[in-house]
Amino acid sequence: MDYYWEDLELGLTEHFGPFEVDREEVVAFAERYDPQPFHLDEDAAAKTHFGRLAASGWHTTAMMMGAMVRARQNSGGWQANALGAMGLDELRWRRPVFPGDVLRGSSELVEKLESRSRPETGILKWRTRLVNQDDQEVLSLVSVVLHRRRPKAASAD
Amino acid sequence: MDYYWEDLELGLTEHFGPFEVDREEVVAFAERYDPQPFHLDEDAAAKTHFGRLAASGWHTTAMMMGAMVRARQNSGGWQANALGAMGLDELRWRRPVFPGDVLRGSSELVEKLESRSRPETGILKWRTRLVNQDDQEVLSLVSVVLHRRRPKAASAD
Repeated sequence: MDYYWEDLELGLTEHFGPFEVDREEVVAFAERYDPQPFHLDEDAAAKTHFGRLAASGWHTTAMMMGAMVRARQNSGGWQANALGAMGLDELRWRRPVFPGDVLRGSSELVEKLESRSRPETGILKWRTRLVNQDDQEVLSLVSVVLHRRRPKAASAD
Repeated sequence: MDYYWEDLELGLTEHFGPFEVDREEVVAFAERYDPQPFHLDEDAAAKTHFGRLAASGWHTTAMMMGAMVRARQNSGGWQANALGAMGLDELRWRRPVFPGDVLRGSSELVEKLESRSRPETGILKWRTRLVNQDDQEVLSLVSVVLHRRRPKAASAD
């Protein structure tokens, strides 16, 4: 189904995951994108505030996105009219994410805005939360996403 | 040198990059972390608002982080007292990033805050911008980073 901006109601909530954080992937991501010692090596991490090897925060956001996209695709959902994210209003990495953690998440539609500059498009704000196997929140963010509005019927004049 | 929170002045600016966006890497990242058609396939992307294959926004942030970390490490810089990011106050993906683009960036220290709950630690806010080979801004964000304060001398009583 093709859901338009008009069809999506505040409070709508999607769920995604669970997925497990893989140690080799944590290290491989960090080697390429965030080569700080506490993301690369168990011994080096033990000497830091993390205490043990922890995933890059940017890896956590990437894993979150992968799980979100797959959940929408598997649901045969309404993503055809989602036109991409403008950005985030806020993001907090609240707790470290460790290899072996099992994460799951939810996204709730918390705001709808019209667009003056692009009247064929509306803006949706989603509050996304990611929690671990102990129900501790590890990540929260508010994304700002463009979404197609329902085309106006041709005028009958 | 070990720079503490007290040593870093507002307006301090670091530069990083340039680096080139690799087509195979764009697709590999998307396959794992953001499998939407416009990040995976040139023909599919041509039918969307991107017009051609574009990098996942999360890939852009990951490439940015990699270039930032390497620039600091190569400068022998002050990262020893940087204790990790709490999050972002704002992020905007302002323009698409395409394979072959050459990106470079800067981070300016725009705010310093004390921490009541952790007096040994201060908070730094950095405004990071990423531009392409045409000097167009493709990404901007404000990161919120914990940074160690200078240890107080032992009292002489």
